[in-house]
Amino acid sequence: MAELRREPITKMWVVITTDDPKGPPNYLPFKPLYRLQEPEGPCPFCLGNERMTPKETFCIGRDGGGWAVRVVPNKFPFFHIEGDFDRRPEGMYDLMEAIGAHEIVIEAPEHPESLATLKTGQIENILQAYQERMIDLERDRRFQQFLIIKNYPGVFNRHPHSHLMALPVIPKRIDEEISGMLDYFERKERCIFCDILKEEISRGKRVVLETAFFLVFSPFASRFPFETWIIPKVHSPDFHAIEKEKRIDLAAAIQTLFRRYNALLSDPPYSLTLHTSPVQSRFHQPGFHWHIETRLRIGLREGFEWGTGFFVNPTPPENAAAYLRGVE
Amino acid sequence: MAELRREPITKMWVVITTDDPKGPPNYLPFKPLYRLQEPEGPCPFCLGNERMTPKETFCIGRDGGGWAVRVVPNKFPFFHIEGDFDRRPEGMYDLMEAIGAHEIVIEAPEHPESLATLKTGQIENILQAYQERMIDLERDRRFQQFLIIKNYPGVFNRHPHSHLMALPVIPKRIDEEISGMLDYFERKERCIFCDILKEEISRGKRVVLETAFFLVFSPFASRFPFETWIIPKVHSPDFHAIEKEKRIDLAAAIQTLFRRYNALLSDPPYSLTLHTSPVQSRFHQPGFHWHIETRLRIGLREGFEWGTGFFVNPTPPENAAAYLRGVE
Repeated sequence: MAELRREPITKMWVVITTDDPKGPPNYLPFKPLYRLQEPEGPCPFCLGNERMTPKETFCIGRDGGGWAVRVVPNKFPFFHIEGDFDRRPEGMYDLMEAIGAHEIVIEAPEHPESLATLKTGQIENILQAYQERMIDLERDRRFQQFLIIKNYPGVFNRHPHSHLMALPVIPKRIDEEISGMLDYFERKERCIFCDILKEEISRGKRVVLETAFFLVFSPFASRFPFETWIIPKVHSPDFHAIEKEKRIDLAAAIQTLFRRYNALLSDPPYSLTLHTSPVQSRFHQPGFHWHIETRLRIGLREGFEWGTGFFVNPTPPENAAAYLRGVE
Repeated sequence: MAELRREPITKMWVVITTDDPKGPPNYLPFKPLYRLQEPEGPCPFCLGNERMTPKETFCIGRDGGGWAVRVVPNKFPFFHIEGDFDRRPEGMYDLMEAIGAHEIVIEAPEHPESLATLKTGQIENILQAYQERMIDLERDRRFQQFLIIKNYPGVFNRHPHSHLMALPVIPKRIDEEISGMLDYFERKERCIFCDILKEEISRGKRVVLETAFFLVFSPFASRFPFETWIIPKVHSPDFHAIEKEKRIDLAAAIQTLFRRYNALLSDPPYSLTLHTSPVQSRFHQPGFHWHIETRLRIGLREGFEWGTGFFVNPTPPENAAAYLRGVE
């Protein structure tokens, strides 16, 4: 049989297969989602090739020619930093220029690295780069929302990197999380994310790991096999307000999670995204609770979710969390 | 530069690349989304192997051992027809048994067929099978929503087939379309789908083709390259109320569209879904306007849309429609 579970924030129904659930062996070896042809020639993100990228906006650990993390504008951005805002109708429709920032966070000087192989200090450097770029970009009043997205392996370049975007609109999924949060607050006068945290800690069966400041867990209505959320245990709307002590703790949690993914599923492809409150006082949501969502890109997708917003997950989150707890 | 366009029904922002737009040559040859290993042994959907499927629920064109279209329960269903409804809480969450129907519409007796190679009459048979199964399944009061989903090529079997599901809940994307429709009606006292139809017919630049009863067009905020909608020109909430005359016209429109896709993009992989009003008087939405959405599964996806609900489309719909109009 299977269960229909409702994701409590966005109210989306997810089908979870409970008889004959799929575990790690069912996903191995991977059927790759795409075949990447690494571009020929030197990698623009590698140490020594700094001149191949646009001028960097941020750097950590500069030491002679060396560095730990660099941030550069994307050469092929979805959003452009210059231009008129120009919000206008076209017939019955709404249109605007895609003004925004689209930067690449180069996560290490070396090409073959991942969140499972990097040192904790280096992961903390990456988090600090996100934070400092957000603090800087927030001064531009045109931007409402920051997004961090990481694909592993990268689609066009395997050098470890993530995308940092500052958008002039609030993307749909963040908007849905905000609506769900406000709706719950109206009924309960409590934060739904805080309530989920408490529920998960008290039940334990979907907990992957708990650190001083963070909970890592498999959500009740996981859309994907081994979907995982990392969430601060104390309510906090803005990622970029994170203190150093918590950043170090988060880096360790991320490293542990991805090492366990590796041990369990031999270097699986994944996508990671960070959701944080909109910025600027007129869009800011103090009731939002920032968090990281991780999706492994394994298993065949039937293409149902595209047309229907309806997900089928053959690995119950209780099983996923048990697997991820059992591996060191 | 790029534009941010807002999808008028669900209000989702989509990035459309307007400088350096991508056309068909940019997508060829396809980087397959997955590599399908056809299962060994005889195909259960082929003529002569009827005993390999569960007992059929519907058949068109039975003639001795032959047939035109068969409908059978899925051997590996997401939903089960038997069992208790059992809607219940689990802690703070909502849960129910996945009760529903999940049937496979076998679209032709022969293995190597597609919507571009089938005769119009056969496509009409397929549409009739959808319709008759919906009329039958609607009598089961547990079901709120029908879904049709077709993947080409099929994920587990390349024999042409589609999925017909009767669900005990309304999937998120349909629910969003209903909310958008109601919201627009409240402001304008008009159907948003009807208004889009009129807008597109009067402008023409996103029209792919127009028949007596249907408009085929590229939506203003297309999420995918060559995304296409097929929509009845006269308001109609329920696909399964379609008259024979319109079914024949729709079959011809589908055939023309998929032949043009083929001519333009040499047999591209695609997904197709049919959205129709919820059923049962307490869920039915007379303001809904049924339609078909088609997505080509071409191009690399960066995985942004998953975590953000934020799509990037490098082929503007005006270009897509011009390509699709230019090919006969």
